[in-house]
Amino acid sequence: MTQRDLIHPVILCGGSGTRLWPVSRAAHPKPFLALTGETSLFEQAIMRVSEAVCFTPPLVVAGAAHVDLIERQIAPLVAERGGYRLIVEPAARNTAPAIALAAALLDEDAIMLVCPSDHHIADPAAFLEAALSAARLARQGRLVSFGIEPVRPETGYGYLQRGEPLEGGHAIARFVEKPDLARAQAYLASGDYCWNGGIFALRAGTFLSELARHRPAMAQAVSEAVAQGRGQEHVFHPEAAAFAAIAGESIDYAVMENTAVAAMVPARMGWSDIGTWAALGEALEESSGEAATADGARELHRNVARGKADFVDSSGVLAITDGPRISAVGLEDVCIIVAGDEVLVTSRAGAQQVGKLPGAREQ
Amino acid sequence: MTQRDLIHPVILCGGSGTRLWPVSRAAHPKPFLALTGETSLFEQAIMRVSEAVCFTPPLVVAGAAHVDLIERQIAPLVAERGGYRLIVEPAARNTAPAIALAAALLDEDAIMLVCPSDHHIADPAAFLEAALSAARLARQGRLVSFGIEPVRPETGYGYLQRGEPLEGGHAIARFVEKPDLARAQAYLASGDYCWNGGIFALRAGTFLSELARHRPAMAQAVSEAVAQGRGQEHVFHPEAAAFAAIAGESIDYAVMENTAVAAMVPARMGWSDIGTWAALGEALEESSGEAATADGARELHRNVARGKADFVDSSGVLAITDGPRISAVGLEDVCIIVAGDEVLVTSRAGAQQVGKLPGAREQ
Repeated sequence: MTQRDLIHPVILCGGSGTRLWPVSRAAHPKPFLALTGETSLFEQAIMRVSEAVCFTPPLVVAGAAHVDLIERQIAPLVAERGGYRLIVEPAARNTAPAIALAAALLDEDAIMLVCPSDHHIADPAAFLEAALSAARLARQGRLVSFGIEPVRPETGYGYLQRGEPLEGGHAIARFVEKPDLARAQAYLASGDYCWNGGIFALRAGTFLSELARHRPAMAQAVSEAVAQGRGQEHVFHPEAAAFAAIAGESIDYAVMENTAVAAMVPARMGWSDIGTWAALGEALEESSGEAATADGARELHRNVARGKADFVDSSGVLAITDGPRISAVGLEDVCIIVAGDEVLVTSRAGAQQVGKLPGAREQ
Repeated sequence: MTQRDLIHPVILCGGSGTRLWPVSRAAHPKPFLALTGETSLFEQAIMRVSEAVCFTPPLVVAGAAHVDLIERQIAPLVAERGGYRLIVEPAARNTAPAIALAAALLDEDAIMLVCPSDHHIADPAAFLEAALSAARLARQGRLVSFGIEPVRPETGYGYLQRGEPLEGGHAIARFVEKPDLARAQAYLASGDYCWNGGIFALRAGTFLSELARHRPAMAQAVSEAVAQGRGQEHVFHPEAAAFAAIAGESIDYAVMENTAVAAMVPARMGWSDIGTWAALGEALEESSGEAATADGARELHRNVARGKADFVDSSGVLAITDGPRISAVGLEDVCIIVAGDEVLVTSRAGAQQVGKLPGAREQ
């Protein structure tokens, strides 16, 4: 791999994680929390793209509120390998504009690996293998999604349907929104569908030209925000008014579902978006080797504790506490989260609703 | 009612309430907690027997550890009506010896109304009516239990089967231990069974003679402990060695199940022994008029909060907190108790097991 072939990691820090309240809060949002281990999801994302033989130093895209958090967490990780660059979004406008900012600052031939900063990946080697496959397809002019091999009939994720085979992957035949359980089970059984992991390999020039084709106003606004922006050492500030005028949209809606060059690479890497406390419970179980079975049937969940916890006649309880002891009796598939002055108790099935709580909304 | 006919309330303070951990603890046991309202269960028990036209000042039986708590709670309630008397048990030996101590200190013709101090009674007028009926039967030489009209097929209580009719009550045909659900449902449907409420009206002399007949050693030991005991103002200390040598036994086992003069009076008074967090949830619901239906089918439980709590997609959640906010999502029939450094989450069905928790056992 020559210097020119190095992959440019682009780390997106936009997730707010309101469904992980009360641990994830405005001042300490999800990417910067050590939810799955000793390090934060953001730190893990940076570490996954730290192989100097494969990657350039990372380019981080984040809001102004999190610049200090990022600096504190990233500095020790990149000190000995060329530092990092940071784009400070003047406003949160979803993933398509954020990725376009990064693409506009890079060479048009640069291969970007776009990674959310708030996902969990149990197997970094499998991630690296998928990234290299995806980069190869991106160099051939494809816009490449990571297609996560499903391990259960998940209704909380979008799905990608495999199309014609490509070298190391497939074209994408169809994007599917979050399905109901019956459809999720059918997708799982068919073997033709993957979860849409929200991780992308893109040639910068290809992405910008496809964006200009399908969202010309957005492409124009990003181009202006970059042209009129100002850089200072390793930090770049796009011009605020031009960027703020953009209608926020995800890369999937704005580009991937419209382009003729969408592709996917398969990835089986113990991935989770840690979107809810239930998802964190799954990830912690899977990390410890007690996963759901591949055919969609579910093993009995075991209990997982972070902090002091006792269990009687309980299964599938996730207990997380920053101090007080948690005691669980006669419970099944429940998450108990104690943080500061808040005690959250949610069924795994209800975990999607946590963001609706007064506590999660009043921040 | 003449002075001689006044009823002598005997309030037993022996309950430890480990299944109500973490609120009920060794230093603050269940009777002295304000679980159902602004006043403690003990204070409510005293208030229920405060009608001077019916009752003498109360006689309290308790362990030495709780004398200060009792003094603090009872003093304001009895200051203007003759104070109270206290028997300090040298050791906890269950209800039969405790009641025998009280009987031995009273005139043999005294009618005792023996009341646990840790029960909840929603309708004090109905309690008073049942007490007067029971006292009448006790004067006729019966040992009288309160038979609580069952309102659901409860498996956590003992049952009394009605026998031949008596004036204002029935003889007791049979005592039944905690039944399984099928038997509890059959008892409820038959109309022949009541819950054993653990409340008794007894003529002191009748009780002591029946105790001497069925548990002569216990009767003898109590008699010695009283004869060698010492009184000081309103407090009586039985002699410790004689009392401690007694084998502890409940009044039901020692006397009621053996005597030929057992009787019961019906009582429909919104009674609960508040034995578990689930039972407290029931009692708080019933107090607010949303009870289980009389045919044993259950209405949807509503949520009950004491302290700050928010509910989303939940029913039958009991949320009690001494500070932190509780947020409940997607839960059904769960009790969440936050007290000091402890967070307990139990299903209603599992609430009987709370006493098995390390936290409840290590006190």
